[in-house]
Amino acid sequence: MDTRERLIASTRELLWERGYVGTSPKAIQERSGAGQGSMYHHFRGKPDLALAAIGRSAEELKGRAEAEFGGPGTVVERITAYLRRERDALKGCPVGRLTQDPDVMTDPDLRRPVEETFAWLTDRLAGLLAEGRANGELDAGLDPVATATALVAVLQGGYVLARAADSAEVYTRAMDGALGLLTAHVR
Amino acid sequence: MDTRERLIASTRELLWERGYVGTSPKAIQERSGAGQGSMYHHFRGKPDLALAAIGRSAEELKGRAEAEFGGPGTVVERITAYLRRERDALKGCPVGRLTQDPDVMTDPDLRRPVEETFAWLTDRLAGLLAEGRANGELDAGLDPVATATALVAVLQGGYVLARAADSAEVYTRAMDGALGLLTAHVR
Repeated sequence: MDTRERLIASTRELLWERGYVGTSPKAIQERSGAGQGSMYHHFRGKPDLALAAIGRSAEELKGRAEAEFGGPGTVVERITAYLRRERDALKGCPVGRLTQDPDVMTDPDLRRPVEETFAWLTDRLAGLLAEGRANGELDAGLDPVATATALVAVLQGGYVLARAADSAEVYTRAMDGALGLLTAHVR
Repeated sequence: MDTRERLIASTRELLWERGYVGTSPKAIQERSGAGQGSMYHHFRGKPDLALAAIGRSAEELKGRAEAEFGGPGTVVERITAYLRRERDALKGCPVGRLTQDPDVMTDPDLRRPVEETFAWLTDRLAGLLAEGRANGELDAGLDPVATATALVAVLQGGYVLARAADSAEVYTRAMDGALGLLTAHVR
């Protein structure tokens, strides 16, 4: 990996572990093994580097989700694959955790990729649920947008509960509950 | 309010707004109007003060939830009252946000009230759902513990999505989706 990539990778890790306010330029330099001059050669500063890191995490998250949403199977099978994908539940979501960073949320440039990621996820899931309703797989009473929002929320909240309990099982249980609720709408 | 109470109240606000890592003893002193000597007279330091603040937030959260869980109405009406209670969705959950604080999660004393709060919420909701199943209000196929975990998760995730979108409506939509899913299980 070249220095620019190492800086981005280290910033992504630190944002995930410690958040924006807890990530210093010095910590990024130490983890990436890049010097201060090299860091400021590639990036204007911490916000610029964080923007690149957040954008990269958002793209990866969407790419993985799209592999499941666009994969084989019925609508419920694809949603199940997405919710049941093995995740490092105790680490939490690299994008969702940024919503707890006041410095990220009050900076429009840094918040934008976070907002766009969840809007994309919700839209994509709502489209799948509408498809399931149209093809008769799901009952007509299901609200695609509200249900999609609840499913994205249960995943983000599953991380919160797993971290609170220090147990990845709690995350799995939240997904079980969400899928159990959804299954009642399968015709 | 006496000085000790002002210190606790200020710490609760700062933890909610900026998290543990973003809350300095100096900021607590400034917000509470208490001097350094006064702060260290009442508390051994930031962890001790944070423990009092987190415990207070956890007790308040449980007290409000219990008012709805133990209130009038059917099981689904009480769960609806809980999920639909007006919340400051953009501020997020004062207890849930602590799960993103590595310094809170790695300190067993500070993590305990966070863990206990979510375990209590999930148990209480699971008990309600089991009651609804036993009295014939909810269908027998509903798994009380998994469903309760999903409902607590959707609330926590609703905050995440509301903050990401800078819109409290997204929180409401997640609750709509969760209740829509639950309604299919009402007999």
